[in-house]
Amino acid sequence: MSKVIFYDTTLRDGAQGEGVYFSFEDKLRIVKQLDTLGIDYIEGGWPGSNPKDIEFYRKAAKLNLQNAKLAAFGSTRRATNTPAADKTLNDLLATETKVVTIFGKSWDLHALEVLKISLEENLTLIEDSIAYLKSHQREVFYDAEHFFDGYLKNPTYAIATIKAAAQGGADSIILCDTNGGTLPTKIVEIFNQVQKEVDLPLGIHLHNDAGMAVAGSVMAVEAGAVQVQGTFNGYGERCGNANLSSIIPTLVLKLNCEATAKNKLSHLTETSRFISELTNLHHDERQPYVGASAFAHKAGTHVDAILKNSTSLEHISSEQVGNQRRFLLSDQAGRSTILNKIQEIAPDTKKDDPKVAALTGKLKDLENLGYQFEAAEASFELLIKKTFAPYEKAFKLDGFRIIVEKRGEQPVLSEATIKVEVDGTKEITAAEGDGPVNALDSAIRKALLRFYPEIADISLIDYKVRVLDEKCGTAAKVRVLIESSDGHNTWGTVGVSENLIEASWEALVDSIEYGILLKKEAAQN
Amino acid sequence: MSKVIFYDTTLRDGAQGEGVYFSFEDKLRIVKQLDTLGIDYIEGGWPGSNPKDIEFYRKAAKLNLQNAKLAAFGSTRRATNTPAADKTLNDLLATETKVVTIFGKSWDLHALEVLKISLEENLTLIEDSIAYLKSHQREVFYDAEHFFDGYLKNPTYAIATIKAAAQGGADSIILCDTNGGTLPTKIVEIFNQVQKEVDLPLGIHLHNDAGMAVAGSVMAVEAGAVQVQGTFNGYGERCGNANLSSIIPTLVLKLNCEATAKNKLSHLTETSRFISELTNLHHDERQPYVGASAFAHKAGTHVDAILKNSTSLEHISSEQVGNQRRFLLSDQAGRSTILNKIQEIAPDTKKDDPKVAALTGKLKDLENLGYQFEAAEASFELLIKKTFAPYEKAFKLDGFRIIVEKRGEQPVLSEATIKVEVDGTKEITAAEGDGPVNALDSAIRKALLRFYPEIADISLIDYKVRVLDEKCGTAAKVRVLIESSDGHNTWGTVGVSENLIEASWEALVDSIEYGILLKKEAAQN
Repeated sequence: MSKVIFYDTTLRDGAQGEGVYFSFEDKLRIVKQLDTLGIDYIEGGWPGSNPKDIEFYRKAAKLNLQNAKLAAFGSTRRATNTPAADKTLNDLLATETKVVTIFGKSWDLHALEVLKISLEENLTLIEDSIAYLKSHQREVFYDAEHFFDGYLKNPTYAIATIKAAAQGGADSIILCDTNGGTLPTKIVEIFNQVQKEVDLPLGIHLHNDAGMAVAGSVMAVEAGAVQVQGTFNGYGERCGNANLSSIIPTLVLKLNCEATAKNKLSHLTETSRFISELTNLHHDERQPYVGASAFAHKAGTHVDAILKNSTSLEHISSEQVGNQRRFLLSDQAGRSTILNKIQEIAPDTKKDDPKVAALTGKLKDLENLGYQFEAAEASFELLIKKTFAPYEKAFKLDGFRIIVEKRGEQPVLSEATIKVEVDGTKEITAAEGDGPVNALDSAIRKALLRFYPEIADISLIDYKVRVLDEKCGTAAKVRVLIESSDGHNTWGTVGVSENLIEASWEALVDSIEYGILLKKEAAQN
Repeated sequence: MSKVIFYDTTLRDGAQGEGVYFSFEDKLRIVKQLDTLGIDYIEGGWPGSNPKDIEFYRKAAKLNLQNAKLAAFGSTRRATNTPAADKTLNDLLATETKVVTIFGKSWDLHALEVLKISLEENLTLIEDSIAYLKSHQREVFYDAEHFFDGYLKNPTYAIATIKAAAQGGADSIILCDTNGGTLPTKIVEIFNQVQKEVDLPLGIHLHNDAGMAVAGSVMAVEAGAVQVQGTFNGYGERCGNANLSSIIPTLVLKLNCEATAKNKLSHLTETSRFISELTNLHHDERQPYVGASAFAHKAGTHVDAILKNSTSLEHISSEQVGNQRRFLLSDQAGRSTILNKIQEIAPDTKKDDPKVAALTGKLKDLENLGYQFEAAEASFELLIKKTFAPYEKAFKLDGFRIIVEKRGEQPVLSEATIKVEVDGTKEITAAEGDGPVNALDSAIRKALLRFYPEIADISLIDYKVRVLDEKCGTAAKVRVLIESSDGHNTWGTVGVSENLIEASWEALVDSIEYGILLKKEAAQN
């Protein structure tokens, strides 16, 4: 198969999904991760609808991306403006991205009833909006909104809209199924008609309202589409967009498509889970290729069959997409991965060292309790160090007490008292904070500063709380993930408990211990 | 299109999914619900592998089903037995179901390496197993396991296996993609080949490892399949089975298939959610047709378009499948969404009422502070009620104090003291908890119980914490979402603050206020 281009719109169309929200910082981190995976185009937002998006493009331009180009998204001009006077188009240019994607109306009904303009006017504004962007040396993608529904109602007009886009100089035309209800066979049938009419690279942008957006996208590529637009984890309005984490491996591994991502698929699973962590949405275990259950085998007969011949029950090998095979009723999974990690820290460790088995068991127990080490490698390293090397705690906790108080309509006050011991010397101190965890965080830093002045450089840069068994209400178990930095390195730590304070404390202690250890190792080298 | 038969295997193949577990009673309740929806066949279990399953079939036979037939599932006989001496086959007969489904090997590799028998022997045991069941007057379905992978490796042999099944007297042959990796175009291509070779009704049974099981099933029906096997919510091993809750409405509404379920589709959403509730698994909001977000609209421009013409952004009408359209309250929502909501509560409100503009402004301010009302409609309703109706608080808070304490290696202890006032009467009390919020939650309920005994029925069923500006570390702002229930209704509330306790308190107060209000309104009607 020929080359296919992947265009990610997680940050724009994905953010239309219910419960999907990305902070400014999240967006930049996601752009970097998508670049690592070899995504070709990343749509970062709609600068016209959100002033923060222009600032985002300014920051993102400095990310030094290796594979991806940033694309700004917007609409054709308003009917009442000239292109040069149109705010949307000029906002798009202000982002200074090399690529601009604009959408326009393909469905006669939408031009007449939603835009309330004549069909002729709609063709004009498609053409001259694109021509204006082209005159500013942009690569322009034209998203033909509602193309398939429009084509079914009025094929002549739908074709006329994309011919207008071609006339305006569009570099590529993307056929969109905006309502998401068109069946794959119909998608392919219409796609083939369009190919006869328009001599431009065509792309596909599907929504998942009938549960077939992945299939429709893959089949459009089989029919000749060279660009696929979609989102990670299928985020998006209503039932979501076409899921790139399913489409990319299918096209690359099963249809042998050439793609920038081709040799980077081992980052696929981590990318999907990373984005899910940042949105704080549950990562679907059953998600094809990247889900925790995607290569999990439950039935004993299946496990036997796999051990005899892995192709007998797996459509691809899990390593190809950076995922892992799991046997749900056995604990053989993950041993070699863990050994790998251990050898990074204790290189002489042998496979049959009983401590390897012990650590594997401990890890499984912790994961059953809700711990996750994917975003908390520092906690995992500390676990290995505690098992494989003589390890001394940086401090001993005598105890802490937090008081949170509210009087009438006054704001809540939080203060923490803490008592620690280092090498036989005790220190007691107290601190206030914006909440109980912040007060505790301030107090422990204050208490340790005289023993470890280097912790002045360490700061928390990220703090996430995830409720694990939500059905238990406020007594639910929570997982706290903390990311810390000393200005050079960043590291993640984790804590789990029914008590948020306890979980946060665990992650905090790991964070500080690891930071002190890093400084110590740096001083020794 | 012609008639299509739906065969549900949620209780058997679905139960192979990670985390999917049905109790004996659950299974009976699900059978009744599937019957209400008009499912044609319900596979209840594998009596050979689970002795309780024979008991299940005995009980299920008494359910007086209106539409569905029960099917028992098992395998072809063992190579070492005669059919009449084979325990699996006799267990299947012992269930006394009118329908029996057995699976056999289509892939030469599996016969040779997994069963370790000759290819000829495999054909014999397929044929005589079916013939034995037929001699006991059963309707027999033959599931051709691994059919597509087997066909790709050795088409002649794969065809021979289903010819053996036909020879044995099978009433229908179901082609299975057991590894779930075959693409829909390939499924259709092979399906068409098989149709030329075998003159029996054909069915399709797909797994979702490439995310295309729904599309493959629908396309197989387009190609001539008359039976679709699948599970509700796509439960099943690894990435799950083909999702019947997507396939049924697609075939009935979009391809005009005749089906027993045709006039019963208004039960579709309730069936999907009911099964999800019983398994205690999260119901995927984005699930096509039946998800809570499937007809939810966020972008203001979309809401406007829908109010102008609903077909402009919805592929079907939500009522057809028993679901509901929702306009999400977000900063992208337009004025018309909010007016819509207000009119549900205060029907006489006019569009130009200055309070509408005031509330829209307030909503935007709150959203800028981090509030989100998508999952907290109760908080938004309270906001409307406070603006548009005389509103009295259920209680006044004098104050609370929470103490969280840790001594050495002991677990953390949390206790809350609270003082409230209702109609001039004060109440002070205290409670312990699994964490500071849980302690506060217990204390406020305890304090209010003498004034509002009805809150005994209200419980928190979901508690979510999201850190908003994560870069601020433990001083970051958090949003707390709480879902509550009184056994009949559920409602969501929200709180935002730098202090987790304050944010939780806000959401808790809204939850209790709303619950009390609901009871009051119910008593008035």
